[in-house]
Parts: sequence; structure tokens; C-alpha cells
Amino acid sequence: MRLYTYFRSSAAYRVRIALNLKGLEYEAVPVHLLRGGGEHRRPEYLELNPAGLVPALEDAGQVLTQSLAIIEYLDETHPQVPLLPAGALERARVRAIAQATACDIHPLNNLRVLQYLGQTLGASEAQRNAWYRHWVELGLAAVEARLAGDELTGAYCHGDRPGLADCCLVPQVFNARRFDCDLSAMPTVRGIVARCEELEAFRRAAPMAQPDAE
Amino acid sequence: MRLYTYFRSSAAYRVRIALNLKGLEYEAVPVHLLRGGGEHRRPEYLELNPAGLVPALEDAGQVLTQSLAIIEYLDETHPQVPLLPAGALERARVRAIAQATACDIHPLNNLRVLQYLGQTLGASEAQRNAWYRHWVELGLAAVEARLAGDELTGAYCHGDRPGLADCCLVPQVFNARRFDCDLSAMPTVRGIVARCEELEAFRRAAPMAQPDAE
Repeated sequence: MRLYTYFRSSAAYRVRIALNLKGLEYEAVPVHLLRGGGEHRRPEYLELNPAGLVPALEDAGQVLTQSLAIIEYLDETHPQVPLLPAGALERARVRAIAQATACDIHPLNNLRVLQYLGQTLGASEAQRNAWYRHWVELGLAAVEARLAGDELTGAYCHGDRPGLADCCLVPQVFNARRFDCDLSAMPTVRGIVARCEELEAFRRAAPMAQPDAE
Repeated sequence: MRLYTYFRSSAAYRVRIALNLKGLEYEAVPVHLLRGGGEHRRPEYLELNPAGLVPALEDAGQVLTQSLAIIEYLDETHPQVPLLPAGALERARVRAIAQATACDIHPLNNLRVLQYLGQTLGASEAQRNAWYRHWVELGLAAVEARLAGDELTGAYCHGDRPGLADCCLVPQVFNARRFDCDLSAMPTVRGIVARCEELEAFRRAAPMAQPDAE
């Protein structure tokens, strides 16, 4: 398997965690999102992934895109170390927590969005940072409200094994810290992330552990 | 089943289509996103869904959130009229097309985001409309590139039966038209949407067919 990745891409980070949790070997192909106007905008990458986004995963002669779709694919094709529980209601819970990050928070804070805010709308750096923190803090507060006091929450987002929701939460909290977001009201989220970060699978997936880290 | 919905919510629209495709009866509970500062921000709704977003689905005594998680739940619990294909690669394809809308386009054009642009960043109506069109046109161009010329694309996004990807595409195109986006370079997308809109399941799910339509 070949993963097109960028060390700081939150969506690529999710897939790296999933691959590591499952113990799957892969070749990392770095796609630099800033260098030369962005390597993800080059014709050869757009041929692989017309959306011009990372990550993309090559497997079985196919190119897969969208981090959550890739992780579900890995879970279906390599069911050992499952990342989703068995029951439909529980699966819906895990997917909803994952999507609370992947749909409600991260898309608003993507590099291309920050670039549009600055370049097209003339937002200052302070305004862009406030925007970033607004969506992270609002979104993670909703995740906290969902996790806290729910008996299905365990050491990780769902029970005592890390899974799809944790693959999404950890990169989001990494980003939140980078932008000095206030996570003081989110003890459940912080506890889960701290436990994840003790695991080798999460550590090896971290941005600064990547070959293309700067 | 009880669906908390708003006629113009694109995410609720997706779930309404899925319920209709499966022939499932549900009680629609309208949650008005504008009236009185937004009914989704009221304590009684936040107790159901701490994220304060629609849709939410009550089933089996549980509240499910996040439209894609809800649709996957419906597909697992009511497998007749499947909305995802059987093979892992094909499922990944359908999920990726769905997420290209649900993660890359729609979150940027949500009501709350447009409100932030106007109220906090002082963006004019023209700037907000340009923002809206920018993300829709960029995102749908990527979907078009993915669908066009792919032999797995049929009358619908995947083969000749409507499914999860169509549940996401049709509401997005509905929004695109409402904001006068340029879809001239997207004949595959337009063709699929036109075929969907001929189906009763899609028609009954449309915003103007809802009891709370204005």
C-alpha cells in the first residue's frame, strides 16, 4: 500500500494511525502542501486524486480518497484489530463522533480555507486564528458533551480499545494545541487523547515522526 | 423513528432521501434554524444533540446524529434497498463521493459559517455569495472529475441504483442552484441529479415538499 501524505495533514494523520493500529506496512509518499504552490495541485497528483487533497491510498491497483472512506475500507479488508464495534447503534455512535471532527470542525480549518480567508477576504492573522479557535472550541465542546458521562465512553472514545473516533480526535486535538485553543473545559477529550498518545501506533503517526516533517 | 429536520438543511435532506429510498416511515419534527435565534440552540434540543445541528434521528430509544452515520445505520439495520454496494473497494468509492460533498463542500457553506463570515468578519453579501460559490464549484468539479468517464458510474453515482452518494449529491446541487453556482462544466453531475429528481423518494424529500417549508 502506498499512502500519499503530508506530515501536518490532519486527514492523512488519521489514516496513518489506522494503518498503524492494524499493523499494516505502507510506503509513505510525501505531498508537500506549501512547496511550489502546493504539490497537491500538480497535474500528476490531480490525476490520482482530482480533488487535489491528501491523503490518497493506493491499494489493489486502485486509488482511494477521503480519510474516513479509506479507514472504513481498511477495516473491511483487514478486520483484525477492528476500528468499529459490531452493533449498528454502536457503529453509528463511533461514526458520529468521528464525523463531528471530520465534518464539523476540520473542513473549516483546512489550509485552503485559511488561505481563502486571508487572500480573498483580507482577514488578518488574528482574525484567522480567532476563526480557527472558534470552530475547534465549538466543535470539541460538542464532542466533550457527547463523551462525558456516557457509559459507552471508556479509556478511549468508545470502550477500552482505540478506534475510528480516536483516529479523528487525536489529530484534531494536535491542531487545536498548535493554535492555542482553550481545551480546559474538555477533560474527557484530553484524557482520551493522553491515553492514545501513549500508544506506539499513535506516536508513530504523529506529524513530527514523519519522514517529511520540518 | 423520529427525524429532527429543517426543510432547507442539506444534511437532513440526505437522511430524508435515504429513509424514502428504503420505504421507512418516520415522524418529522421540524427544528427551525432561524426562528427565535434558532430552535437548534434551545436547551431541549441541545440535550438531544449537544452539537446543536440537524438532523438527529430517534430510533430504538437512542438519538443518532451526523447524517452519514445515520444513513449507514439505516443501511445496516434495514438492508433491503441497500445504499452501499457489497465490495470493499466499491463501498470505498461510494463513501468517498459522499464525503467529497459532506466533508469538502457542505461544512463550508453551512448557515452558521455564513453567519460568522457576515457578523464576525464583516463579509458583505457579495463576498459571502462568492465564498459559497467558490467551494461549491471547486468541490463539485472534483466530483465531476471522479464520476465522468468512470465505468462504475451509471445512471446514478454508482451503477444503476441510487445510493449513499446520490443522497449527498442531490441536496448539494439543490443548494448550488439556490446560490446560482455555475454547473455548466458538470454534465455528469447534472445528469445524475436529473435522474434522481425523477424518483418519488427524492421528490418527497425535497425542501419544498416538507411540512415546514416556507
